[in-house]
Amino acid sequence: MRQSQLFTRTKRENPSDEEAKNAQLLIRGGFIHKEMAGVYSILPLGYRVMDKIIAIVKEEMDAIGGVQMKTSALQNKESWEKTNRWSDDVVDVWFKTKLQSGSELGLSFTNEEAYSNIAKNFVSSYKDLPFYPYDFKTIFRNETRSKSGMLRGREFYWKALYSFSKDLAQHNMFYEKAKQAYHNVFKRVGIGEYTYITFASGGTFSKYSHEFQTISEAGEDTIYIDEEKGIAINKEVFNDEVLAELGVDKNKIMEKKAIETGNIFSLGSKFSEPFELNYKNENGEDIPVFMGSYGIGITRLIGTVVEILSDDKGIVWPASIAPFTVHLVALGEDMSEAEDVYKELNNNGIEVLFDDRVGVTAGEKFADADLLGMPLRVVVSKRSLENGGAEVKGRTDSESVIVPVNEIISHVKKVIQ
Amino acid sequence: MRQSQLFTRTKRENPSDEEAKNAQLLIRGGFIHKEMAGVYSILPLGYRVMDKIIAIVKEEMDAIGGVQMKTSALQNKESWEKTNRWSDDVVDVWFKTKLQSGSELGLSFTNEEAYSNIAKNFVSSYKDLPFYPYDFKTIFRNETRSKSGMLRGREFYWKALYSFSKDLAQHNMFYEKAKQAYHNVFKRVGIGEYTYITFASGGTFSKYSHEFQTISEAGEDTIYIDEEKGIAINKEVFNDEVLAELGVDKNKIMEKKAIETGNIFSLGSKFSEPFELNYKNENGEDIPVFMGSYGIGITRLIGTVVEILSDDKGIVWPASIAPFTVHLVALGEDMSEAEDVYKELNNNGIEVLFDDRVGVTAGEKFADADLLGMPLRVVVSKRSLENGGAEVKGRTDSESVIVPVNEIISHVKKVIQ
Repeated sequence: MRQSQLFTRTKRENPSDEEAKNAQLLIRGGFIHKEMAGVYSILPLGYRVMDKIIAIVKEEMDAIGGVQMKTSALQNKESWEKTNRWSDDVVDVWFKTKLQSGSELGLSFTNEEAYSNIAKNFVSSYKDLPFYPYDFKTIFRNETRSKSGMLRGREFYWKALYSFSKDLAQHNMFYEKAKQAYHNVFKRVGIGEYTYITFASGGTFSKYSHEFQTISEAGEDTIYIDEEKGIAINKEVFNDEVLAELGVDKNKIMEKKAIETGNIFSLGSKFSEPFELNYKNENGEDIPVFMGSYGIGITRLIGTVVEILSDDKGIVWPASIAPFTVHLVALGEDMSEAEDVYKELNNNGIEVLFDDRVGVTAGEKFADADLLGMPLRVVVSKRSLENGGAEVKGRTDSESVIVPVNEIISHVKKVIQ
Repeated sequence: MRQSQLFTRTKRENPSDEEAKNAQLLIRGGFIHKEMAGVYSILPLGYRVMDKIIAIVKEEMDAIGGVQMKTSALQNKESWEKTNRWSDDVVDVWFKTKLQSGSELGLSFTNEEAYSNIAKNFVSSYKDLPFYPYDFKTIFRNETRSKSGMLRGREFYWKALYSFSKDLAQHNMFYEKAKQAYHNVFKRVGIGEYTYITFASGGTFSKYSHEFQTISEAGEDTIYIDEEKGIAINKEVFNDEVLAELGVDKNKIMEKKAIETGNIFSLGSKFSEPFELNYKNENGEDIPVFMGSYGIGITRLIGTVVEILSDDKGIVWPASIAPFTVHLVALGEDMSEAEDVYKELNNNGIEVLFDDRVGVTAGEKFADADLLGMPLRVVVSKRSLENGGAEVKGRTDSESVIVPVNEIISHVKKVIQ
């Protein structure tokens, strides 16, 4: 894509009304637009990141048997009264609205009720189980304050999968697969080494739930990491008994702030009972379905990546989710050679943002390339050509290397793979 | 996908609370789930249709220079007061809600304000124009009554693109391209021959807008079709002057009911003026941006296809948007040969729904295949194998043909292409 055709522009200054680093950088780069505190529109550059994260999460969910669908945003009162989650006294983050007739509606703040209600139409026998529907969805939460940018929105985008199993044993088989799928997601989006599976509070049906916590000073949670075991414990359940149970040595742990980027939870019959979501077992007895929930905040992931992978010059996108692989920067008035490189990169299926703007200084173009954070910057100028080709630099490299024009494709492919 | 793993099931009876054929068939087939009047969740089979329509629309929008993004659902009052569209007296389909602080918010019922407000951040010179952002988005409209199924929802999914041009001439160039892209979309989703570009009421900046109207008795609009010219006129603007202007002979037109499946509109400065969305022209003068809007209802398209392409047995999906190309039906206890065919189809990249259910009669399986409406039904049974292979039948064919098992792939590819 040509930068001259991209309608967004970068800003030099941080927005005055944002405290969070992720929101500051994403707004300055033109990735997002602030509609109000906690509500952002996703601009084309940001959408490309989101689209890539969605594709990765979708692949991992499909690989463990997930089937994609799309639940509605508007929620009727009756479903939520069944689980006692309609009242604003119980759930304080509802956005409510009304039909013309006066009937109250809610906007999805989570999805257990919607899925339980749908599943009830299709489950009768143990033969109907298990199944694993999921959706990507806009979620609404009426937070009192919202100042963490994309980390805690009033409107945000998530993936939620629900598992419907006949019993704990069948549930556990999937739960372990989901753990692995989650590890895969965080590794693939580039924050695997900062993300720990974390023991957190469970519920009636399991002692623990599992969070995926990504280390960041911007996080709201405190976790205790056992680096050797590759696990962490959330402060909320941290005590000597838990340490003993998990075989973690109190002297070998690190306390860290972290962002909860995902969580998986054994729900048991917490939702199937109020919805009378039962199946008949082999003996003809009615048994409540055993449920689990598996969430990942897609927009929160974008914010998290920016919080932890950026430097004083701007964002550093991992190649797997970067809007473009290459930021091609043309300098000077004669851009014909850069145009050829642009065509060549496109013809080889390499995603490239082409800074073909005229009347913009080299300094401004370099500052933009750093702020926008594509993995590779390729500069084509009179000087670079005199030196033997294009100047190629990784986003976090301090020095560029000269690569002959006819070797750029193979060089890019080698570096990115 | 194995039908035994698909959690939805078909229903024999029409739902008692739906009048619209599209909703009846889609609910019976397990494509959608009714949450309340005008609000549906999209189940996995329906999602596959939606996903394919989205991919087609996206391709056509990208081809004419569209850039995808994602605007928020929550809307602040200030933007809509600028265009005098906040008041419920002016716009009677708002869903409104509130922040904890008491500030009123609205849920997007359309997108002009959001886009105008965003564009204002990035436009200063004529060099910044034109650009063409779009999104796929959940839209909320608080309709008093909602009984047309997917044709008029209180919550629905659409694609909206907005064009930002410097003047009428630049606008018109894109407008003509958009017309062609819309024709392409309707042709590709399989309703091209039923869909007419239709002259409808314009506004301050153009005499006409253009609707894409698809002939159906379920439609709310009345149009007059000139078959020879391949155009139609909406009843709302139909008069002798318009007939003369368009060179349409009153004696050669047909009156038809139709569904408005898309529309394109020249907005001029209707929205750029209240938002002071101006650019500086070559002489340094401030000029309002010339806007256009281009909408397609994605969920409405699904409903429209079902309304017009179905028979008394069920839905007839066009191959381009069918959830699966092949419905493979195994009969009898020994499904080993059908399993091989299933693998072979998958290995060749052909999307197949495999009815591998046991304890379901042939009659039930055939009735389901007809209701679900995949383009090709492939039956593998002891009898079919004795007769020389599989029984292959197009959804609307009356007779099946025997195709040797080792020729199924080439046969399917030939029929579908």
